Amino acid sequence: MQTKKTGTQTFTFASPPSIAGHACVVGKKEGQGPLAHSFDIINPDTTFGEATWEKAERTMQKMALQAALEKAKQSTSTLDLLFAGDLLNQCISSGYAARDANVPFFGLYGACSTMGESLCLASMALDGGFGERAGAVASSHFCSAERQYRTPLEYGAQRSPTAQWTATAAGAVVLARTGDGPYITHITVGRIRDKGIRDASNMGSAMAPAAYDTLKAHFADTGRSPDFYDLIVTGDLGRLGRAVVVELFRRDGVELSGVYDDCGCMLYDLEGQDVHCGASGCGCSASVLTGHLLNGMREGRWKNLLFCPTGALHSPTSLAQGESIPGICHAVAIAREI
Amino acid sequence: MQTKKTGTQTFTFASPPSIAGHACVVGKKEGQGPLAHSFDIINPDTTFGEATWEKAERTMQKMALQAALEKAKQSTSTLDLLFAGDLLNQCISSGYAARDANVPFFGLYGACSTMGESLCLASMALDGGFGERAGAVASSHFCSAERQYRTPLEYGAQRSPTAQWTATAAGAVVLARTGDGPYITHITVGRIRDKGIRDASNMGSAMAPAAYDTLKAHFADTGRSPDFYDLIVTGDLGRLGRAVVVELFRRDGVELSGVYDDCGCMLYDLEGQDVHCGASGCGCSASVLTGHLLNGMREGRWKNLLFCPTGALHSPTSLAQGESIPGICHAVAIAREI
Repeated sequence: MQTKKTGTQTFTFASPPSIAGHACVVGKKEGQGPLAHSFDIINPDTTFGEATWEKAERTMQKMALQAALEKAKQSTSTLDLLFAGDLLNQCISSGYAARDANVPFFGLYGACSTMGESLCLASMALDGGFGERAGAVASSHFCSAERQYRTPLEYGAQRSPTAQWTATAAGAVVLARTGDGPYITHITVGRIRDKGIRDASNMGSAMAPAAYDTLKAHFADTGRSPDFYDLIVTGDLGRLGRAVVVELFRRDGVELSGVYDDCGCMLYDLEGQDVHCGASGCGCSASVLTGHLLNGMREGRWKNLLFCPTGALHSPTSLAQGESIPGICHAVAIAREI
Repeated sequence: MQTKKTGTQTFTFASPPSIAGHACVVGKKEGQGPLAHSFDIINPDTTFGEATWEKAERTMQKMALQAALEKAKQSTSTLDLLFAGDLLNQCISSGYAARDANVPFFGLYGACSTMGESLCLASMALDGGFGERAGAVASSHFCSAERQYRTPLEYGAQRSPTAQWTATAAGAVVLARTGDGPYITHITVGRIRDKGIRDASNMGSAMAPAAYDTLKAHFADTGRSPDFYDLIVTGDLGRLGRAVVVELFRRDGVELSGVYDDCGCMLYDLEGQDVHCGASGCGCSASVLTGHLLNGMREGRWKNLLFCPTGALHSPTSLAQGESIPGICHAVAIAREI
């Protein structure tokens, strides 16, 4: 078999997998933001009827997969593989959400890049001949993330101006080996980049070099320039990280800003919703993709999209031990037609 | 392309990837056990020269990958993809270990099944045409795991009789699309199984139903009976979990015990090393595979091996919230010749 590798880190699919279904489920704050119209389910109190935030997150993740399966006219029993991840220690949202699904399961940890990682691996599996359908899922919950990574909500801690707001959101995609699109045509798998940022309230700056590295590799590997795409979205870099990416490309003489946005800048109203630098969390890029972006592609607003979620691969322990924050970004090229 | 799926959850490779290099690095206690002769590097004080246990674990993981690459006569620059995971929150051992590798990276969370998950995904990638070489790595460290999952070592807490000892060990495999073997011929991807065990000191019982489920599926999907294999190894079920698997098959009229062992029962001297029910941790099955088992295959001791690492997908938080422990097991069929 011919290799599907193009350049240093991009893979071109021989039979681009088709997005058969996609759905997102979010909390109250996300439902008050500018993308409210694009969400499948908005929970009015962010508990999803559960007694703990951790259980709420897994319920939200199950609802997202269920909704995506319904749109694809499938059920968990027709999935060959399920790829899922989240931010919680030991990825418990994904493990417990998948417990009743009875589907061959791969748990992932890519921090906020997880929607990209799950789409890459699910696409590779289908293009490689490993089944007919695969699920790709990611989630985060503001309240479970705050108490794990920062401080319990009850402390009422003040947030730094560079901080981002972890989205309460889950996104799910059901991919099929064949179908009528949109199609995943290429992936550029990220390498870890670390420029020495040690401030856990400045994730955008920590992850921006990884986004720059992956985008640059994608353009070099494919020979495409940024304007090949109708829209390039990173995420969740937020306002500051987004500006860093634009500036890094400007130094190379490449102007991104006309076609470029960031999921962390899109999910909330940055002026009116008190989220400082924007949104973050696996659920941020997962819900922006599975709502606003894929809906827009289906409605004909965009033909070619480059979806590039970013993740920060640190932990509170690694920061306490003086380490900096490594970033990663995976790029997924999605085309309306092939 | 024809599907490579066989039965419900098994995949048969069209071009079985070849194990080009494998290596393991362990701590002092593992180096005093019955498999001491099989390890590539034994660190005399388990610190690996680092100031914290977390940094020790990532150094050990880097050493294992480096040693496997040297045996394969490769370097990180000739790896197309790297798949790695560990037990620590946010998988920091793998993320930080891969930071300098400059290789497209996928972080995994499969708890102690991670060596199986990384081998499954790396094999799927190569058989699917996604590059020439891929790395699969997993690690655990007794001291970083104890303080994260149970109590800091300094407390001197007493251990339950059903408890297992988290191995200080890392294993790495370098897979190549072609080569002279051993070859990975089939994988059976695990589904999550949860029989309601809530005792974090009884992981063997929690994971045994997943091992039984995956093995049963593997035999049904492939039409092979247990005696097709010279050796079937689960792991890390330990003494109690191993007995549960034997008993579950006995109820089906299937006798496993002649060809069956468990990595958790193999790594330490169960009578002399005060490890209660045996070994556990991602590093347990990873080091038993990359030392004793693959060395034995190369030396002609076994022709067909079924490697079935098991993982428990809980967290201290999920247990504190009253949840039971979900288990998973991935089976990897390895043949000396094809």
